[in-house]
Parts: sequence; C-alpha cells; structure tokens
Amino acid sequence: MSTVRILGIDPGSQRTGVGVIDVAPDGRMVHIHHAPLSLMKAEDFPQRLRLLLDGLWALIEEHKPDEVAIEQVFLSNNAMSALKLGQARGAAIAACVARDLKVAEYAAKEVKLALVGKGGADKAQVQHMVGVMLNLKGKLQADAADALAVAITHAHVRASAARLGVGVRQAWGRR
Amino acid sequence: MSTVRILGIDPGSQRTGVGVIDVAPDGRMVHIHHAPLSLMKAEDFPQRLRLLLDGLWALIEEHKPDEVAIEQVFLSNNAMSALKLGQARGAAIAACVARDLKVAEYAAKEVKLALVGKGGADKAQVQHMVGVMLNLKGKLQADAADALAVAITHAHVRASAARLGVGVRQAWGRR
Repeated sequence: MSTVRILGIDPGSQRTGVGVIDVAPDGRMVHIHHAPLSLMKAEDFPQRLRLLLDGLWALIEEHKPDEVAIEQVFLSNNAMSALKLGQARGAAIAACVARDLKVAEYAAKEVKLALVGKGGADKAQVQHMVGVMLNLKGKLQADAADALAVAITHAHVRASAARLGVGVRQAWGRR
Repeated sequence: MSTVRILGIDPGSQRTGVGVIDVAPDGRMVHIHHAPLSLMKAEDFPQRLRLLLDGLWALIEEHKPDEVAIEQVFLSNNAMSALKLGQARGAAIAACVARDLKVAEYAAKEVKLALVGKGGADKAQVQHMVGVMLNLKGKLQADAADALAVAITHAHVRASAARLGVGVRQAWGRR
C-alpha cells in the first residue's frame, strides 16, 4: 500500500471549496493544498459551472489525486437552494468522473463523526479539528476547511476498510 | 444566416431527454433526433452522471449542435427531488460548456408559451404540439418530447431576436 492522494470537494454554486491531502500507509496525513474556487465572476449560470469544471480540471492536472471525496449537500427546506447546490454538486462530480476518478460521497454527519467523534458536532469544531489534524496554523477559509474535512473523512474510512479487509462502504456500515 | 442546429435537453436524474432540430433561416424546423438517455444502469450516483456526460458527448460528437437549450427545472416543494434534479442539470450543462457550447435556459412557462401560446398549458398539450410542429407520427416518449419542446422554444426566441435585431434574452423581455 502506498501513499494515496485525496481531493476533497465542498460544492457550492457561488464558491466551491477544494482541499488535497496525502495519506501514508500508516494513516499519517499531510496537507498539500486548499483553496476556495470562486465562481462569481462568470457572466451567467452555465459559465459559472464552466469555471467550476476548468478549476477542478486544472487542480486535477496539477495535483493528480487518486480518489475524490465530496460532501452530501445539506438539505434545507428551501427547494431553490437545494437546486442550486445540486447543480454545482452535479457539475463537480461530472468533472471528476470525466477524468476517471472514483468519487466517494459522505453525509455531513459522517464527516462530523470522523473529525470530532460525534455526529452532532458544529461546523466550528470540525474546522478547528481540520487545522489540528493537518498541523495548519491560523484560521482556514470555511469552504476550503470543509473540503479538507471530507478528504480526511475519506482517509479514515479507507484506513478502517483496510484494517477490516472490506470495501470502503462496508467499513462505514460497521461503525 | 444559415441553418442552426439546436440540442434541447430535459434533465432528470433517472432519465434525461435529448432532442435535436435544425432551424432554417426562414424559421422552418426539421426534426433530426430524439431519445431518452437512461441513467439507471449505473452502479452509483457519480457513475450515473458519467453515463449522462458520455451520452451527451457522444450526441454532440454525432450531431454537432450549434447551440443548446435546457429547461429550468420544475421546482417542487421537495428539497430532495430539487437536489437530484439539480445534480443532473448541473452535469448536463457542464457537459455542454465543456464542449464550448452556449447554453440558453428557459422556464417551463416560456416553453408552454412558445409551443401552445399560453403559459398555463399542460404537458400533454405541449407534447402534442411538438409532434405537430415537427411532423412526427405517433406518441413521443415524454422526456424526449420535452427536450424537443425546449429546442423549439429556443428556435422561436432566436427568430424573434433576429426580427427585432436584439439579443435572445431581450427578445423574451419584449413578449
């Protein structure tokens, strides 16, 4: 088993967070990159998705991740915001599968469990733990922190799966 | 002004309808192709979006549309269905802009106005008019008919815009 590079994505229609980490065979994690991709400069909505695609493709080209993890979108009761988030999420997943990358999806609750140890943790706690686990100083931009958090979640799940000798999905089922 | 080929898309997370028409300079429309792209064979959701991307890219390769029209999704009060539709819609738009195609968006009401002449028309009337306007015999599959309907809407809007000597969006504003 060699080092695995994971791209985490926190999709949003105005700004999409991206984070890249390396996970060594012993589970140690190294921070490689994080940034918010701003989509607001586009002239219309289709061009916004174009910015998202181009941004992700440039990132995939530069950092060559092995796997991708993406957070399942928070479901508000507002159908319009669910639609907007869904569109960004669909385009982000499309960008990754178009580059033959496997995409794992994690619910917000799974991310909180992996980072803080309880499904009811708040966003600030999760973002704080991202900094601690990756040895980052200073306050992280929120979308980028969430992207790193889902990448870390995927790293944990991969490690459990390896220990248990099962697939990544089964590892979660046993928690 | 030469013939313009329009790809219409009716996005859906289980099945996405596609329709292709040619519009002559005098406004005459010719049916080229229509089909539902079934996404249900994929093993997980990201692979479903992959089927959608590959299907659209094969279609774009084969029929070489000049422009794309896509319906704005019907907004139910159900945030979960809005999210699912949004993801399919986002991936479909991403597929088109990745091939440098301009994508025009039309609300369901605009499609009904263009096809039946009233914004409150029902789906069956719209689908019936698609058959009449494109000289198609027999009952059309519903998603493919909706895809042709949004392509026809775009053809109408382009024709009005040309008559008025304005952009496509302005032509709608004047209706």
